[in-house]
Amino acid sequence: MDELVGLLPPGRVLVDPDVLASYRHDEAEWAPYGTPAAVVRPRTAEEVQVVVRYCARHGVPVVPRGAGTGLSGGANAVAGCVVVALDGMRAIKEIDPLEKLAVVEPGVVNDDLRAACAEQGLWYPPDPASSPWSTIGGNVATNAGGVCCVKYGVTGDYVLGLQVVTGTGELVRLGRRTAKGVAGYDLTSLLVGSEGTLGVITEVTVRLRPRREPERTVAGYFPSVVAAGRAVEAVAAAGLTPSALELVDRQCLEAVDAWKNMGLSADADTVLLGRTDAPGAAGEAEADAMLACFTAAGATWSVRSSDQEEADALFAARRLAYPALERLGPVLTEDICVPVGRVAEMLGRVQDIGVRHDTRIANIAHAGDGNLHPMLLTAEGDEAARLRAQAAFDDIVREALELGGTVTGEHGVGLLKRDGLRAELDPAVLDLHRAVRDALDPHRILNPGKVFTTGKEST
Amino acid sequence: MDELVGLLPPGRVLVDPDVLASYRHDEAEWAPYGTPAAVVRPRTAEEVQVVVRYCARHGVPVVPRGAGTGLSGGANAVAGCVVVALDGMRAIKEIDPLEKLAVVEPGVVNDDLRAACAEQGLWYPPDPASSPWSTIGGNVATNAGGVCCVKYGVTGDYVLGLQVVTGTGELVRLGRRTAKGVAGYDLTSLLVGSEGTLGVITEVTVRLRPRREPERTVAGYFPSVVAAGRAVEAVAAAGLTPSALELVDRQCLEAVDAWKNMGLSADADTVLLGRTDAPGAAGEAEADAMLACFTAAGATWSVRSSDQEEADALFAARRLAYPALERLGPVLTEDICVPVGRVAEMLGRVQDIGVRHDTRIANIAHAGDGNLHPMLLTAEGDEAARLRAQAAFDDIVREALELGGTVTGEHGVGLLKRDGLRAELDPAVLDLHRAVRDALDPHRILNPGKVFTTGKEST
Repeated sequence: MDELVGLLPPGRVLVDPDVLASYRHDEAEWAPYGTPAAVVRPRTAEEVQVVVRYCARHGVPVVPRGAGTGLSGGANAVAGCVVVALDGMRAIKEIDPLEKLAVVEPGVVNDDLRAACAEQGLWYPPDPASSPWSTIGGNVATNAGGVCCVKYGVTGDYVLGLQVVTGTGELVRLGRRTAKGVAGYDLTSLLVGSEGTLGVITEVTVRLRPRREPERTVAGYFPSVVAAGRAVEAVAAAGLTPSALELVDRQCLEAVDAWKNMGLSADADTVLLGRTDAPGAAGEAEADAMLACFTAAGATWSVRSSDQEEADALFAARRLAYPALERLGPVLTEDICVPVGRVAEMLGRVQDIGVRHDTRIANIAHAGDGNLHPMLLTAEGDEAARLRAQAAFDDIVREALELGGTVTGEHGVGLLKRDGLRAELDPAVLDLHRAVRDALDPHRILNPGKVFTTGKEST
Repeated sequence: MDELVGLLPPGRVLVDPDVLASYRHDEAEWAPYGTPAAVVRPRTAEEVQVVVRYCARHGVPVVPRGAGTGLSGGANAVAGCVVVALDGMRAIKEIDPLEKLAVVEPGVVNDDLRAACAEQGLWYPPDPASSPWSTIGGNVATNAGGVCCVKYGVTGDYVLGLQVVTGTGELVRLGRRTAKGVAGYDLTSLLVGSEGTLGVITEVTVRLRPRREPERTVAGYFPSVVAAGRAVEAVAAAGLTPSALELVDRQCLEAVDAWKNMGLSADADTVLLGRTDAPGAAGEAEADAMLACFTAAGATWSVRSSDQEEADALFAARRLAYPALERLGPVLTEDICVPVGRVAEMLGRVQDIGVRHDTRIANIAHAGDGNLHPMLLTAEGDEAARLRAQAAFDDIVREALELGGTVTGEHGVGLLKRDGLRAELDPAVLDLHRAVRDALDPHRILNPGKVFTTGKEST
């Protein structure tokens, strides 16, 4: 590593064992990881290029990392690798209100970009649950989703251009700054969601929207997750376009109540939270129509919240669900996406799978676009429970595929969904993936062992 | 070709010289083309696979073709090639109102899909000017744009999944049917806009929207293209999101008047046509705000059209501009896209370029997203005028790049923008393109000579 230290300004290369230990893994439960040989915290794209070129020369694996908030092990270290930690590159280089775009370094935190845009009357929509901590670079690498996707799409829908360092150490610009453009292949979209296996992102140009209308909230309490799932289907069938449609089940409500004493679980088995940002009377009408869908699907209580504080409290419960569950023990988070017409059936199957494997499963879901996050709960140190949860995890993935779904809606393949990817894609399509990977990373140094089951495995 | 004839059902392989002649080129002016050895009109994906495998075995170039309405030479035949004409595969296999998607064969005509969706209360937005004739497969291969892009995005924004035959003759499914999904690389987006060089599209799964609100129209008459360009910038600066913002200049208005006697050119040098589909009072407010932008930017006359017939007539003039100009002689159509803040400047530069090269240039533009279509007019058979027009074409491309634009906004690279692509992209990025192309088409049989300047050139 002395050579690498000499190639970079002082302080960039970290080899302290405690530091290395803190960069070994992301937030995925039970995904394998090794200890890196070094962590590099570059400040410029050129420094990233120096690191990748060094690693290419020496055949050292490169593991790019943003904030490490991923849930699939995509940023987990491989033994002996160099972790390129991009969280120090956090300049918002430009916000252009006329062209409605921003140019940012990869380490800019999602919420920070949103706040900076809001100051200029603009809106950066993608809002993963990790938005207070996760970085734009990581969001791009995983094509992160969030609550607003049901109406406004995912991270990739907002990426106009990228600067990346490829596996051969080339520093290249992909994409454009114009509203439209078809000059060459869409390599920008190819890089989005490639989880660090095709290039290290050193700059992102994102598309912005004008500030939107304030949202109206509709809440429905349902007697079961399946009933709530039917309401989701009813909303889609009615041709509504909610700006959010989130599901929180009893397990989550109870965990939040146990932590924050919000009194939610007394009244509901499952809560569905809808929002609309259609303007004026159209928004009123859409909120009313959503309420009617909830009621028709069997809501025991439903209400259009005229009180913004009350509405925010309900959404806070949704945000708090994951940390509230984590207080109780290890949480293995699923991330499947099924057709909207299969949400109710899939939620029912998740319950059955929990019973079958004697595993407690809580559910939050971006229900409006069929993206479910069953959360498999175990007790710390209970090895048998861990194995049961992992078996349940595999069953959920398999049954999602049976219902025409995908093994990952927004968290990425990383390490946890590599077998799922093989189950989802034809062998010929996996071969195309490998051919494309080899085109951009011929030495196979970029995040090896992720996405694909070939390559150097982490331990 | 006897071998190929024997591999397919009767009637699929056409070798009649008159038929071959009619499949030599698309609608691009002055792009080179050769005569195909055969035209195949397959009826199934498996038949396409048979053709590609035959061509791969024998090293025969494959040129995929939809309706042949392209404007960059992307579907032009190479001497001795097999043209795979997909316009016979025109089944709409499925329209799913709940999941809001449709599955179609590549030869389905754009307007036919839109009409079929409308019957079920759904909307397929992408609306290139060729929509009465062009096919979804061709739209996907070129990532076609249109009028609604300024608010609703381009073809690629609506492609959920593809079935394609790769250059090695593999028949594969890419993408998904769910609203979200990040399982593997986004090869779907990679294929979109790849102009037949990465695969032959045999099926397309498109995302649909609910039917939208009726649009309101605002028309502005301006004393110059530059003044109209300033109004476009004003609309963007005001944070408005028109559902259309189209520009038609004096040359076009006069040509339409000469043909249809609509009396447009008496009052205006340049017309700007804005639309909004925001619902209710929000739409009223947006139309008023657009009107105010037009007036402030120097419109000599502007009006919110309360009369749908009048509004439709103005948009008809925009649609008629291209055929009206074609009546007068060969039209070389440009397709650049610049930042919205540079629209006025670029329009002024186009005028200067016309003067400099003694070439008459008319303008239509999807002005709201900076996508300009200067149309270079010549007299039939005037060789010197052709050379002057081609020099002007090159200057427009170069100056668009100077202003931070792209060499093609929506028509594709094909043959006409190959030099432009080299000017726009870094050599390292072109190398990535070639590496990706070789990954999917290792024998380089798919539409050779298009996009890239390497490979077998057409003559």
